[in-house]
Amino acid sequence: MSQKQRTEIATLGQFGLIDLLTRDFPIHNKSTLKSVGDDCAVLAQPRGEQMLLSTDSFYEGVDFDLTYFPLKHLGYKVVTAGVSDILAMNATPSQITVSLGVSAKLPVEALQDLYEGIKFACNEYCIDLVGGDTRASMTGLVISVTTVGHAKKTEIVYRDGARKNDLICITNNLGAAYMGLQLLERERRVLKDVEHPEPQFKGYEYLLEKYLKPRPRVDIIDALREEQIKPTAMIDLTDGLASDLMQICKSSKCGARIYLERMPIARQTSDLAEEMHIDPVVAGLNGGEDYELLFTVPLSMQEQVMRMGLVDVIGHITDEKTGCYLVTPDGGEIKLKAQGFPEKE
Amino acid sequence: MSQKQRTEIATLGQFGLIDLLTRDFPIHNKSTLKSVGDDCAVLAQPRGEQMLLSTDSFYEGVDFDLTYFPLKHLGYKVVTAGVSDILAMNATPSQITVSLGVSAKLPVEALQDLYEGIKFACNEYCIDLVGGDTRASMTGLVISVTTVGHAKKTEIVYRDGARKNDLICITNNLGAAYMGLQLLERERRVLKDVEHPEPQFKGYEYLLEKYLKPRPRVDIIDALREEQIKPTAMIDLTDGLASDLMQICKSSKCGARIYLERMPIARQTSDLAEEMHIDPVVAGLNGGEDYELLFTVPLSMQEQVMRMGLVDVIGHITDEKTGCYLVTPDGGEIKLKAQGFPEKE
Repeated sequence: MSQKQRTEIATLGQFGLIDLLTRDFPIHNKSTLKSVGDDCAVLAQPRGEQMLLSTDSFYEGVDFDLTYFPLKHLGYKVVTAGVSDILAMNATPSQITVSLGVSAKLPVEALQDLYEGIKFACNEYCIDLVGGDTRASMTGLVISVTTVGHAKKTEIVYRDGARKNDLICITNNLGAAYMGLQLLERERRVLKDVEHPEPQFKGYEYLLEKYLKPRPRVDIIDALREEQIKPTAMIDLTDGLASDLMQICKSSKCGARIYLERMPIARQTSDLAEEMHIDPVVAGLNGGEDYELLFTVPLSMQEQVMRMGLVDVIGHITDEKTGCYLVTPDGGEIKLKAQGFPEKE
Repeated sequence: MSQKQRTEIATLGQFGLIDLLTRDFPIHNKSTLKSVGDDCAVLAQPRGEQMLLSTDSFYEGVDFDLTYFPLKHLGYKVVTAGVSDILAMNATPSQITVSLGVSAKLPVEALQDLYEGIKFACNEYCIDLVGGDTRASMTGLVISVTTVGHAKKTEIVYRDGARKNDLICITNNLGAAYMGLQLLERERRVLKDVEHPEPQFKGYEYLLEKYLKPRPRVDIIDALREEQIKPTAMIDLTDGLASDLMQICKSSKCGARIYLERMPIARQTSDLAEEMHIDPVVAGLNGGEDYELLFTVPLSMQEQVMRMGLVDVIGHITDEKTGCYLVTPDGGEIKLKAQGFPEKE
């Protein structure tokens, strides 16, 4: 947040504020016919394509802590979350709306920082900001994002298409965002009453980046298309591997086995987990907000998937009645749970 | 809110809660291809039509007070707000998403009441609930609504089409919702410390209905089509007549004259305003949340508009440089202001 100037929101008024925040957003998509400035945005649909719609909200004190979350990064991250939902359907994101609930404690400059981050992400992913409002909130900052995308009917990938023997693939190291958050929380606690706090992040920059500025995996969707791989089911990792895999299994009416020794966990993640007495496997299974993609492909596509070089195969789909388990190297099976610690059976 | 049972949200979990709240929603539109239950909703677009998208948020303590706002009515009202935005573009609403931020103080039964109201409105206006999430909020209830509609390109009415000499039309009595809110606030203050409060609403039921359960003017859009009237500009009345008319004038680069003696103010509105020492004209000009439609038509359509029997013509569009004024019976002109009290010049 810029410390140089402090303009109270009240001096601009609701309409002046929205004008200021949204005036420099370029339009990237021909399908954006009318952007900010009327009762609705007006969008065209590319011929023969279907429209995808996703909505997410972020609450101060629950989803982010402004004492260490730079507003520019936060703006970037809320766009990532929306884009990631569209990608998880194997579709192309094109428009976004952002509604803010703002407490009076934030100056106009802080909201400009937030919108800088939103704009940066919109430019990076070629999506158009087409609407939203800014209201007073009695308490903390609330950000609601609605994202629009499009895809041919035959290209869309749902959660319910996973079949027995399909391979379970993930696109990057697990639990890094979660450990980034743990690191930030630790430094906040340690430095709470220090006058000039100098938090120690050295060696853990990757974890901070994964938590504060996660990038949606547009590259994976492009690579899948290049290899002509259409996943049978797909979801983005927001609630943690265990929880999100169970969503696929529930929708697809199947079970799953994933293998502990195949779980990709980055060195920084396991180092910090050890330092903080957290089981890195638990961080990998239950740490959310990775915004990586989890998908399944038929066994016959193993070679193509490996050729992408961006994907780890961590297990396979089983019959529904066999449940969802993590298999340990000694052959033990740990039942996956949607939240909290896994249970040894 | 039902007082019979109190189920804590934590007993259901995030996914269980969403399942419970959304499971009985029927699908009304063929364009709804995939509803709740995946990363995105998937929608088809009626051939040759464009898509409209609107988003609104509602904050406890700012937009509503749960001490007197029944949750069922609140659910209905947030849908009205979304539908009204789509109607104000002369389009047909078809889908909605609802995101909730919920404090732990609300039991599951309260959210079921809220969703009852949402469902009632969805059924009444043939729109489909296609998504949303439920998150923890540190403080009050937050409701974010995104509404989707569709229309032929040539049918869409923007704010920027008003031209000099066009007639300014409104669809009902002004300021009723505002006075309904004043009444509820008064009774809350008066009965604050009373053990068995019995608020006095007799004679003012219309005002309460307008505030607590406003209906979007689908009938007006239907009637305009029947009479083959396409407004030159349109907006829904959410911020008050003065503010919303000025939005049209700003977008259309024009001025306006509205006439005090033509402003339709209901008897209940003026009676209560008098009782509470509020100028009924101020209530009519600046009271928001009426969800009525304000639109302009060419002078040549005066007869057709009057034939509708649902509309009051309250003034006309002028040159931009002449500004926006309320004309009093003695010929005085009061400059319209976006918020607050009008200024005598």
